[in-house]
Amino acid sequence: MTTLQNDTFLRALMRQPTEYTPVWMMRQAGRYLPEYRESRKNAGSFLGLCKSPAFATEVTLQPIDRYPLDASILFSDILTVPDAMGLGLYFEEGEGPKFERTLQEEAAIKALQVPDMSKLQYVFDAVSSIRKGLNGRVPLIGFAGSPWTLATYMVEGKGGTDFLTTKKMAYARPDLLHKILDVTAQTVTHYLNAQIAAGAQAVMIFDSWGGALSHNAYTEFSLQYMQKIVNGLTKEAEGRKVPSIIFTKGGGLWLEAQAATGADALGLDWTVDIGQARERVGSKVALQGNMDPAILLSTPEAIEKEVANILASYGHGHGHVFNLGHGITQWTPPENAGAMIAAVRSLSKAYHV
Amino acid sequence: MTTLQNDTFLRALMRQPTEYTPVWMMRQAGRYLPEYRESRKNAGSFLGLCKSPAFATEVTLQPIDRYPLDASILFSDILTVPDAMGLGLYFEEGEGPKFERTLQEEAAIKALQVPDMSKLQYVFDAVSSIRKGLNGRVPLIGFAGSPWTLATYMVEGKGGTDFLTTKKMAYARPDLLHKILDVTAQTVTHYLNAQIAAGAQAVMIFDSWGGALSHNAYTEFSLQYMQKIVNGLTKEAEGRKVPSIIFTKGGGLWLEAQAATGADALGLDWTVDIGQARERVGSKVALQGNMDPAILLSTPEAIEKEVANILASYGHGHGHVFNLGHGITQWTPPENAGAMIAAVRSLSKAYHV
Repeated sequence: MTTLQNDTFLRALMRQPTEYTPVWMMRQAGRYLPEYRESRKNAGSFLGLCKSPAFATEVTLQPIDRYPLDASILFSDILTVPDAMGLGLYFEEGEGPKFERTLQEEAAIKALQVPDMSKLQYVFDAVSSIRKGLNGRVPLIGFAGSPWTLATYMVEGKGGTDFLTTKKMAYARPDLLHKILDVTAQTVTHYLNAQIAAGAQAVMIFDSWGGALSHNAYTEFSLQYMQKIVNGLTKEAEGRKVPSIIFTKGGGLWLEAQAATGADALGLDWTVDIGQARERVGSKVALQGNMDPAILLSTPEAIEKEVANILASYGHGHGHVFNLGHGITQWTPPENAGAMIAAVRSLSKAYHV
Repeated sequence: MTTLQNDTFLRALMRQPTEYTPVWMMRQAGRYLPEYRESRKNAGSFLGLCKSPAFATEVTLQPIDRYPLDASILFSDILTVPDAMGLGLYFEEGEGPKFERTLQEEAAIKALQVPDMSKLQYVFDAVSSIRKGLNGRVPLIGFAGSPWTLATYMVEGKGGTDFLTTKKMAYARPDLLHKILDVTAQTVTHYLNAQIAAGAQAVMIFDSWGGALSHNAYTEFSLQYMQKIVNGLTKEAEGRKVPSIIFTKGGGLWLEAQAATGADALGLDWTVDIGQARERVGSKVALQGNMDPAILLSTPEAIEKEVANILASYGHGHGHVFNLGHGITQWTPPENAGAMIAAVRSLSKAYHV
């Protein structure tokens, strides 16, 4: 493998000294970039991008070619996993993801199995191909959805925000939901380990919908299964630690429990003051975040001010990876993303001396 | 005025001794009740219910007639206020609320004024009429939306979840957003005081979308304006304190700041452990909440178990008003709501001896 030229991101995740605060952006390969929109047009669809290692490589590298980012992230979708589990993912124009089959009947749930990883070979091929394309410029992050988040799609058959069918199952038939979560956690563990084997140098678990759960239900239905995945992850590859990040959007009340999983870093959304988060869990984990992506729609001056606020709130020392608190929106002017990245690089140096 | 026969709710909000934990449900007059659906059919539309004091009275009393609730809440909508401010509220079948005009242009924003309260006379008439219909059975809660929450609708022109246009204004032109928030806070203060004058015995401010803001932005754009309203509220009516409740959905990280406003009680959504919330702010405010409304879709046994968990988490002593953490959903079987209310009544007595 090629030598990594910029390992700032990996060192920050391990809370080791760095010269500045590394930065990347969730959904950095996305619709706000004209070159991405062009690739998507060529691929014919979003799933076409995900399922072609060549296209996935092309779009993964676009933000790396454009900006001085410190990490790349595999272009894919969390729903490739339920698709491989046999649920039949599809997208209807102008609508969100949907599944041909749902997991609501006891018989279907009891028949659920960990799929053969060969069904996700296109993802692992993309990882290998991206590593070649990166040629050691920055590390590559692999990722997956959390079991709870994936289960909401598998039970509801589509995206949502209140997850009433899934929650009804959680309270009326917890045994069935635990079965889904258990099989999904095993699947995600194999999936992330195969990404690591193919070349992923860090992994992140996106718990996009854990914040919809109650305090107790979060532990029982989401965090417990992320914990199982973290326990089962390959810890080292290419002679180096493979750090893990868990991110529950809307999970700022539960950082202490998240930090106790053994993950190396926690993602934070923008509702959390990162300085307060550091006081709560900074002795155990690195922190990744947490600018509101809506701010990228404003002005370079406002963006710089907010970058300065977040860096100051985290304060001196290591263990901070700058990021947005959620994916970059499609309406972001690309130059505003550039202004954020430049501000992080220049303003953060003072906190690392 | 008629003597109040059950003031358990008002005493709990003041953290005074009660014999049991009082209970009501957000959106308790709503679509899950067949009698409500019948009234709505007769009224022709949701706005028809809101704008007719007779229909508003009818549906407000329906859950009081059906269940042993400890409080009633005015049937209305938070968007009557921007409607009175001239934005033109309407509903399209199967879609959420919309406004004919939005506040995005500087000229329109600078022209914004506190409306004459006569435009909301139908609300105050409903309050008087409901008080007559209640005949002292339980207290009546008046309510309004928070300035931030109302501003999101006024700027976006419709409901949403990411509020990109409003947030863009918050960062690019904070002066314009502050103007909207300031006029709205004055309006809401007059509006709630007129509800109190008409007979509301407690008031609640619904900050449905404050949880979408960053830590700092919450203080600047939402909490600050709720504070102004709390400061301006009529404190006493009919020889009795009129308690105030503020509720930021998704605001569990900021309870300390909310408690410092001088509001008598805080609403909690289900992401917060109510026992931890009590440790944080229970010496300053009463707490209202916080069962996940999705649990009402499950079974009476699961509902009773969750009621027991929440009561035990709050623990012994006064200052707890049981409620859902958000509005009851339209798919709730009415008997399940009854099971929750009965469980609160019977299980809570042990915590008040």
